[in-house]
Amino acid sequence: MSRLSSIYPSDRVTLREVGLRDGLQLVKAWPSTEAKVEWLRREGTAGVRHFEVGSFLPAARFPQFADIDALLAAARGARLHAAALALNDRGLDAAFAAEVDEVVCVVSATEEHSQANIRRSREEAIALVARAAGTSRAAGGGAIVNAGIAMALGCSITGAVDPVEVLRLAEACLAAGADIVGIADTVGYAGPREVAALCGGMARLCGERPFIVHLHDTRGTGIANAAAALDHGARVLDGALGGLGGCPFAPGATGNVVFEDLAYLCERMGFATGIDIAALAGIRSILETEMPGEALYGALARSGPPANMEWRA
Amino acid sequence: MSRLSSIYPSDRVTLREVGLRDGLQLVKAWPSTEAKVEWLRREGTAGVRHFEVGSFLPAARFPQFADIDALLAAARGARLHAAALALNDRGLDAAFAAEVDEVVCVVSATEEHSQANIRRSREEAIALVARAAGTSRAAGGGAIVNAGIAMALGCSITGAVDPVEVLRLAEACLAAGADIVGIADTVGYAGPREVAALCGGMARLCGERPFIVHLHDTRGTGIANAAAALDHGARVLDGALGGLGGCPFAPGATGNVVFEDLAYLCERMGFATGIDIAALAGIRSILETEMPGEALYGALARSGPPANMEWRA
Repeated sequence: MSRLSSIYPSDRVTLREVGLRDGLQLVKAWPSTEAKVEWLRREGTAGVRHFEVGSFLPAARFPQFADIDALLAAARGARLHAAALALNDRGLDAAFAAEVDEVVCVVSATEEHSQANIRRSREEAIALVARAAGTSRAAGGGAIVNAGIAMALGCSITGAVDPVEVLRLAEACLAAGADIVGIADTVGYAGPREVAALCGGMARLCGERPFIVHLHDTRGTGIANAAAALDHGARVLDGALGGLGGCPFAPGATGNVVFEDLAYLCERMGFATGIDIAALAGIRSILETEMPGEALYGALARSGPPANMEWRA
Repeated sequence: MSRLSSIYPSDRVTLREVGLRDGLQLVKAWPSTEAKVEWLRREGTAGVRHFEVGSFLPAARFPQFADIDALLAAARGARLHAAALALNDRGLDAAFAAEVDEVVCVVSATEEHSQANIRRSREEAIALVARAAGTSRAAGGGAIVNAGIAMALGCSITGAVDPVEVLRLAEACLAAGADIVGIADTVGYAGPREVAALCGGMARLCGERPFIVHLHDTRGTGIANAAAALDHGARVLDGALGGLGGCPFAPGATGNVVFEDLAYLCERMGFATGIDIAALAGIRSILETEMPGEALYGALARSGPPANMEWRA
């Protein structure tokens, strides 16, 4: 766990920028490689250290991630931690060949969603986690294996999800060798009480090991859910600049929790992030220029932090 | 306290729609009287019972509230509870003459803001609360006297505000005869931890008597702050349809916490509101038509509640 604790220390909050991956997953237009690299570098300069830079998915179906090697090279050059998604053996091989810092695998909380989304069982998804862990170990353990439980707080197919089942899956991922596990409110169904309860369970399951909380702000509870997560032991949270990652099938539905608002919340709750939040607001212009059809969300970029009081941790 | 507990029961959550007052306080264009009445009536039909319908301020400077008598008559006709703001003796006389159900007085948390905002000391503002309470008592106690502490979680002039001072002022308002006191994050400076701490103090101060929490979503923490308030004893919360009430001096700064998102949060946290949230989303069209220059906020109106699970309390 020593490599893990150097990347994700358990004694402070780490924020992961997932906009370059989850924020671009469903869009029809995306930034040029140069603009993506500028986004990554400028956030790096602003103090963000952890990025999901893309997915190892077939380039024919997901051309927005075809330039993932360039992103990985840029992250390496800027000494930033670069994670990438892999959903099958081929993706996993490509991720290890590209020497990513972190491989992200996904296990659906419900069998129904697993079959509908990746046409594989949850058991098969956990087997992929085991394969990732074995490959990483065989290669010297350089790559962190991250297993995220999708639909962990509500499922677009089956509705409410039993937290006991989510914890069972997370435990199975750890048993399969995952370095870190996470819970995702993929469709933004959660309220703060569900997040608090599930994070409490995750904290008991993971002990000293941190766990990841990935929230969407579909119904306005994203930041409230993040506050509940922080209050109940979560120390690693995902977000996307400008709340990128809305679903084109639900027009106007916001996407990932807004990264800059999340960073402000952390500071306001006493968790130092090391992030220059004002600088983040400026980086939104890249998205405005490169993705003019995409709505951006968030309050901090408009209002700025309180002008005349101490608000940083 | 029997009239108070029939209007603001301490054993469940009450949401107050303040859009017709705080939402219109700083705007340059506002809905016609007919549209305001439609807004009030349709929210009433959707289950909202408590409204701030306007302010008794000089009509020359605040023409948006010149039709307050029509709003009061409409509320009476629809058997809705109608509150109105009064900031001086003349306003108070007008409010009692109009037989409002609730007079709202404001005391600034800081002397600096009190002088800058109403050119009077906090002591004088508390004296107005005492006068309101005396007048209400003399008239049979029909009107509830509500004293709100503005800038209670941060001041645009002095910055951080000492919660002990806020509690002292709230206690002074109760001693002056206020039926109910409230705390307002007027400029949206609060994070959930400050809200939790101050609500804890308010709950101890007020005992069985409920207290009001009035939040602005200027920095994205509005709903998180509401969740913290609910978790720490608040049972009466303010909001405005579409998050109306942004400040024209801070372009893009959102206003009051979004009423429909707040109602969803309450239900999601297990507090029944009796409000038809889908109907609220439809009422936003009045604001879109009547105030085309005004940005509306909120997620529920875009996404709707979770489709395939129980989310109501």
